[in-house]
Amino acid sequence: MAVLYLIPVTLGECNVASVLPSALPEILRQTEHYIVENLRNARRFLKRCGAVSDLDRLTFFELNEHTDAGELSTFIEPLRHGFTMGLLSDAGCPGVADPGADIVRLAHKERFRVIPLVGPSSILLAMMASGMNGQNFAFNGYLPVKSDARTAKIKLMERRIYAESQSQAFIETPYRNLQLFDALLHTCQPQTRLCVAANLTLESEFICAMTVAEWRKAPIPDIGKQPAVFVLGT
Amino acid sequence: MAVLYLIPVTLGECNVASVLPSALPEILRQTEHYIVENLRNARRFLKRCGAVSDLDRLTFFELNEHTDAGELSTFIEPLRHGFTMGLLSDAGCPGVADPGADIVRLAHKERFRVIPLVGPSSILLAMMASGMNGQNFAFNGYLPVKSDARTAKIKLMERRIYAESQSQAFIETPYRNLQLFDALLHTCQPQTRLCVAANLTLESEFICAMTVAEWRKAPIPDIGKQPAVFVLGT
Repeated sequence: MAVLYLIPVTLGECNVASVLPSALPEILRQTEHYIVENLRNARRFLKRCGAVSDLDRLTFFELNEHTDAGELSTFIEPLRHGFTMGLLSDAGCPGVADPGADIVRLAHKERFRVIPLVGPSSILLAMMASGMNGQNFAFNGYLPVKSDARTAKIKLMERRIYAESQSQAFIETPYRNLQLFDALLHTCQPQTRLCVAANLTLESEFICAMTVAEWRKAPIPDIGKQPAVFVLGT
Repeated sequence: MAVLYLIPVTLGECNVASVLPSALPEILRQTEHYIVENLRNARRFLKRCGAVSDLDRLTFFELNEHTDAGELSTFIEPLRHGFTMGLLSDAGCPGVADPGADIVRLAHKERFRVIPLVGPSSILLAMMASGMNGQNFAFNGYLPVKSDARTAKIKLMERRIYAESQSQAFIETPYRNLQLFDALLHTCQPQTRLCVAANLTLESEFICAMTVAEWRKAPIPDIGKQPAVFVLGT
């Protein structure tokens, strides 16, 4: 039966061997049809994995904010013809804080087999490294941009930390990280714990977890334009 | 500076190369001090990775339900002496649906570097494969055992699916999976989507996502004593 592989991608220019299973290249070598977030980035990734000898033999469908929803169903046409397909985004795990879920849903609808492969997820790595409750946590995606709505969301998340023991992870567009960091320090209670995890899996990885009171006294972390995950907890 | 590595473990007897980065054995070879959930399982895992020539040279601390909380601080003594340490559980990623967060917290408190490594997490794999909203999701751990409390929790989760577009993942002790499955089919609305993901990364992997109405008409999945993750969403 045709299989849709969900293929994780490195979170930047790190060593492929440190974040992807060694069995992945073999799967890539046997897959000729891909649904990708960005064609150029996907081709570069496949080359970096050393998995593909002839990129011109491959078929690519692009799935991103420009994709017409009505077109999606045609993307899995190779599955209908019995071919293996790979779904991958620009970084991380497809479908988690990332496009791709719509394709997975279509595949399930037509009862194709969906196989998720192991690889780097900044959300999961941040939760592991936060030292906060990993038995109960929420990932909230991007917080609202407007200051009032953002503050309200931070307060809602902080309530769930205490009322439900539910750790709260979230992200921000990198150039707004410092604004968000500032809002967290102003909004949260001093004893609430905040983990900042930036540049995960890269040479420049930075992970620090302490209370808001401690953060207020510490130097501002250098996360101005770095991809980062934030976790609040007790 | 001393480093605490968070080391993922296979989710059963699968091929190590298909779920762990090839760079992991080298990290294990350089690490002589471990905090583990179960000594025997940890030694078997290290052997399976082909990473360790002489297990007798290694130091192990056991962290599980029998561990005295007052003792925890002594477990990171090797870090204080400048040694690298590895934290691992019986399966999956330490700290996520797993013990280990307390040790990570202690390491942060004394400002040791914490490095989370990439590996299999049944929660993350289930979210990827569910086709449900991965931009906003919660992992709820184990549901309450008592029927009334379980039903109330299922209803609360279902409310958040619709009110907040937040997908809801959770687990159950394998021998109670079918009871939980039955409760889900009785409690949830027909149009709510349910993903059942069992034996992830193993030969016998089973992943199916469809609406509750469709599940009600389908054969009961064979998840009686299999480790499974459930995801509810729209």
